[in-house]
Amino acid sequence: MHSLPQLLDLIERYASNNPFPAAPRELYEPCEYILTLGGKRLRPALLLMGCELFLDDPGPALPAAWAIELFHNFTLMHDDIMDAAPLRRGNPTVHTRWNTTTGILSGDVMLIRAYTELARSGNAQVLPDLVRAFNRVATEVCEGQQMDVNFETRTNVSISEYLRMIELKTAVLLGGALEMGAICAGATGKNAVCLYNFGRLAGIAFQIQDDLLDTYGDQAKFGKQVGGDILQNKKTLLVLKTLETAPEADRRELQAWMQTSAVNPEEKIAAVRAVFDQNRIPELVSLEQQRFQNEAFDYLSSVDVPEERKAVLRQTVEDLLERES
Amino acid sequence: MHSLPQLLDLIERYASNNPFPAAPRELYEPCEYILTLGGKRLRPALLLMGCELFLDDPGPALPAAWAIELFHNFTLMHDDIMDAAPLRRGNPTVHTRWNTTTGILSGDVMLIRAYTELARSGNAQVLPDLVRAFNRVATEVCEGQQMDVNFETRTNVSISEYLRMIELKTAVLLGGALEMGAICAGATGKNAVCLYNFGRLAGIAFQIQDDLLDTYGDQAKFGKQVGGDILQNKKTLLVLKTLETAPEADRRELQAWMQTSAVNPEEKIAAVRAVFDQNRIPELVSLEQQRFQNEAFDYLSSVDVPEERKAVLRQTVEDLLERES
Repeated sequence: MHSLPQLLDLIERYASNNPFPAAPRELYEPCEYILTLGGKRLRPALLLMGCELFLDDPGPALPAAWAIELFHNFTLMHDDIMDAAPLRRGNPTVHTRWNTTTGILSGDVMLIRAYTELARSGNAQVLPDLVRAFNRVATEVCEGQQMDVNFETRTNVSISEYLRMIELKTAVLLGGALEMGAICAGATGKNAVCLYNFGRLAGIAFQIQDDLLDTYGDQAKFGKQVGGDILQNKKTLLVLKTLETAPEADRRELQAWMQTSAVNPEEKIAAVRAVFDQNRIPELVSLEQQRFQNEAFDYLSSVDVPEERKAVLRQTVEDLLERES
Repeated sequence: MHSLPQLLDLIERYASNNPFPAAPRELYEPCEYILTLGGKRLRPALLLMGCELFLDDPGPALPAAWAIELFHNFTLMHDDIMDAAPLRRGNPTVHTRWNTTTGILSGDVMLIRAYTELARSGNAQVLPDLVRAFNRVATEVCEGQQMDVNFETRTNVSISEYLRMIELKTAVLLGGALEMGAICAGATGKNAVCLYNFGRLAGIAFQIQDDLLDTYGDQAKFGKQVGGDILQNKKTLLVLKTLETAPEADRRELQAWMQTSAVNPEEKIAAVRAVFDQNRIPELVSLEQQRFQNEAFDYLSSVDVPEERKAVLRQTVEDLLERES
């Protein structure tokens, strides 16, 4: 069993031993670039943890772990074009530093490279299941991104649609990472499915928490600007919960604020937060988060390996979900 | 053994039995749209022919055949964005009919779908080889597209670079189709490689012929506008051969024409064609095409199955390379 830092070290060593080809430079340089922008390597770490529940040697899962990181970065590269995002982790996005053609094509080759790594994983016995799990999750991530795109121009998004969107867009990839790790280790289907559900539900809890922190987080600890979602009029779970549960006057006030571009950003953030507060929205959303979190850890308990083998995984996900709010 | 029309029928039936999901409609409708724009299904037909050289039942290769068609259409969808192309086979391109976000995301999900089909092909024994062959070719297609993008702004493209570009961008996918068909049938590595080289070299010959037909084709038989490459100042093999072999005065004349946007299109086409003619460029390029074509068919002869089994494949590729010039 390896600690999280040890696993992260294994991942970085694997990555540096398996760089992209040198040519065509215009194609591969952006791939190397986005991979060095300082991601936390959470998904490959989860994949290795999924493997190490069942197997002492995570070696056969390393290519699959790198595959899932490549896939994640492919989605970032393409999403940044779709969102016209200028910055990614404080650095210029690929399509900004180069151009849209580069963002598309380097993203494409990074997705194909993910499959190349995948085909080097596990052994010939597990490969069909591994590829099928990856395909299923990858397809769902695209569907989630499409839902997110659709929501931007829709005014009647329901809470269940929103939860389904964050599930597909980000949570299934966390579940898929754990599931694929288990598959690499030759785990039973039941254990792989429990791990998938653990990661998926924890992922939903994490995304709900992200909505909370964006409005109620401690600026010193939260990476992004607190209040950013409010200023961008994003239909977060806080907004949808208000529109579903608050009295009409409060709903109208929130909608009015969401149709104004902020002349005074601080005033807008404070006013919207007041609407949330007087309707106990943070408490309601916290409860929702807790519900997913509890269900997630129930699934982890159902995984049929000794509890001590789950320690690193449990701690990692607990830490993830205990960011200061 | 099936005839080409029978194989095309099998492909269409497989496709209509395996449609994209209905939702999210915004994601999958463009995938169905581009697939119905009337492609010739050449690549999946070649894949099935590669399989039928060794196996009477092409059934195990059908998902792989559809996978390669999906991959091809994914590249068209993304290339059309990069080329800012308004039309594809006389119809609006996906990013024109919808938008760039749709073009990117629907292309992405179509590539993932190609892998989903691939994972349903052959059997567990051949899957690793199948995925590896697909990954190798898919990567090369991206590299070829990048070279093509680079060439647009370069003034010193060599003939060997140009040949390498068309090889990667289009020819390896034809070779890969045949190779993957052979892999599905459990053929030997030697036979699979010979088929790959047959398709790859025939593909290069086909692309060279395309350059010739664009300038010297019969307008009634050629699908696109004859002279289109000249008007777009494209660095075709005709141009590169002129720049490599013609006397300086002719080279200068060609370069001058390539830097003017045509006031009188017919005049420009006639003038550039005259430069080609007086340097016997069409003959030289034809010889180059013939060289690749001969080498291709030598590889087909080396495939270790009775000649009569090769009849459909041989005839299909011969027909392809006998378009009227």
